[in-house]
Amino acid sequence: MSLLVVGSLALDTIETPFGRVENAIGGSATYISLAAGYFINPVRLVGVVGGDFPTGAIKVLEEHDVDLEGLEVVPSGKTFRWSGRYHYDLNMRDTLLTELNVFEKFEPKIPERHRKSRVVCLGNIDPVLQRRVLDQIEKPRLTVCDTMNYWIEGRNAELRTTLRMVDVVIINDSEARLLSREPNLIRAARLVRDMGPRVVIIKKGEHGALLCTPDMVFSAPAYPMENIFDPTGAGDAFAGGFAGWLARSDDFSDENLKRAVVYGSTMASFCVEKFSVEGLVDLKHLQIQDRFRAFRELSRFDEPPESPDQP
Amino acid sequence: MSLLVVGSLALDTIETPFGRVENAIGGSATYISLAAGYFINPVRLVGVVGGDFPTGAIKVLEEHDVDLEGLEVVPSGKTFRWSGRYHYDLNMRDTLLTELNVFEKFEPKIPERHRKSRVVCLGNIDPVLQRRVLDQIEKPRLTVCDTMNYWIEGRNAELRTTLRMVDVVIINDSEARLLSREPNLIRAARLVRDMGPRVVIIKKGEHGALLCTPDMVFSAPAYPMENIFDPTGAGDAFAGGFAGWLARSDDFSDENLKRAVVYGSTMASFCVEKFSVEGLVDLKHLQIQDRFRAFRELSRFDEPPESPDQP
Repeated sequence: MSLLVVGSLALDTIETPFGRVENAIGGSATYISLAAGYFINPVRLVGVVGGDFPTGAIKVLEEHDVDLEGLEVVPSGKTFRWSGRYHYDLNMRDTLLTELNVFEKFEPKIPERHRKSRVVCLGNIDPVLQRRVLDQIEKPRLTVCDTMNYWIEGRNAELRTTLRMVDVVIINDSEARLLSREPNLIRAARLVRDMGPRVVIIKKGEHGALLCTPDMVFSAPAYPMENIFDPTGAGDAFAGGFAGWLARSDDFSDENLKRAVVYGSTMASFCVEKFSVEGLVDLKHLQIQDRFRAFRELSRFDEPPESPDQP
Repeated sequence: MSLLVVGSLALDTIETPFGRVENAIGGSATYISLAAGYFINPVRLVGVVGGDFPTGAIKVLEEHDVDLEGLEVVPSGKTFRWSGRYHYDLNMRDTLLTELNVFEKFEPKIPERHRKSRVVCLGNIDPVLQRRVLDQIEKPRLTVCDTMNYWIEGRNAELRTTLRMVDVVIINDSEARLLSREPNLIRAARLVRDMGPRVVIIKKGEHGALLCTPDMVFSAPAYPMENIFDPTGAGDAFAGGFAGWLARSDDFSDENLKRAVVYGSTMASFCVEKFSVEGLVDLKHLQIQDRFRAFRELSRFDEPPESPDQP
């Protein structure tokens, strides 16, 4: 049981209708590792930061038992920075700033003892880098890859090559439509599966998530949230809960993929309740189990006591 | 066990990317009655048509054992006509024509023997007319009301009065946001419940439906459809399956409301598979049960065999 996470570590400046944080700890690898850490320890992280990355952020990761051997520090460089502003309904956001900084020349180097990781979760980074990670892994049992519209539009051919190499791709609904050029989500999922991944997961925000495997479609509900403070990192927290549960349970059956999607949704729901990574740093396992059960209650219904076949 | 349906009967001209039909049988009362007829017989219909309403359409309703005593025929009048064109992704449509015709002066008269109906389903018509129907019913056990943006925008105060008188309101997501002026759907549902109805159902098309009662939220999945031919009437078919199941089972508990939502979703999924009412006229009860079970399979997941509380 082992999980390798590769992605970005960032300093985020985020504005939502509820407030603003500056240079908060962020990045896909950060969110994925923190979420996955509730399921498997230690999570092996590979990424890069500059000399300006706060020691407090390192401490948060260490306290969550994240293995930082694969974290490259470029003392003279600046950490990746992202800044965004969410609209009043939190479903739309404007990216105000993206500074790649040390990420521009990042060459992921997987430490020797991490090359046999059983589950690999590739955060949302350049598909070329995702591939270079995969090239260094020996016989992974499951590879999971996140991506976004930026790569679908700007690096389509490269992304297509990466998709041929992974088992699971996680995208949101608009990205699935963009990638497949098909408005119907069920058909879009099939078309994306045709590009390589055996399993496609489509995140639909407030509408839940769809899991499509060769043999079934599973529809996971969204947790009914009246107060979303900051959607940043929700997709990464989803990927972390999903990959973390699979790495822990070491069961890749359709039934267990469903549970993994619900654990992903569970971690995403905690993530958006607070700013930055705050929603992921102080959870109890009982809270996670309670929310998993709330997801079950939310979507559970029974057969009728009598069948309506003779009205 | 008895169900009264009040709404429009129409002649629809529909254009979708897959074809076009002219003067096809339509209207909210038509779709609701046909869908509900698979659960309870006879469905009592109240509405109005002109002398031009085709006898073939009457025959379809009679063949489905719809009680037409409350159908008013104005020989010199023209039937309500609606025409719409769906965009390529079927999520948007332009209304090309709305001719109220005999509906303009319609005064619903509930036949004496229908005034004790136990369940009343008010199709999407003027909220003033919906209220006049309710005024004629003696102690209904459950009143269900559909509405749309047209009435929310144009008849807001009247609609608010009607909402104070019904038990269940069925609206779609954009209508819920419009009515409550709240983008968050869970809060929107609560605000609509504050307007009167004990139960709010929010239809989300390809994302399923939400059921909100005083004690719970239930998230029903959407049936994964690769081919939607004509979305016309889907909302009415939903209301018909929902109200039909409740009238039949005579059980208004939260658990049974959930099943009713799934039967509603089931009938809507059949409705959109063909043009006009075609998807609702020739179903077998076994098909309906099979699809109900498919909805269960689609959203079912189990607790993990071990709990992840000691990672």
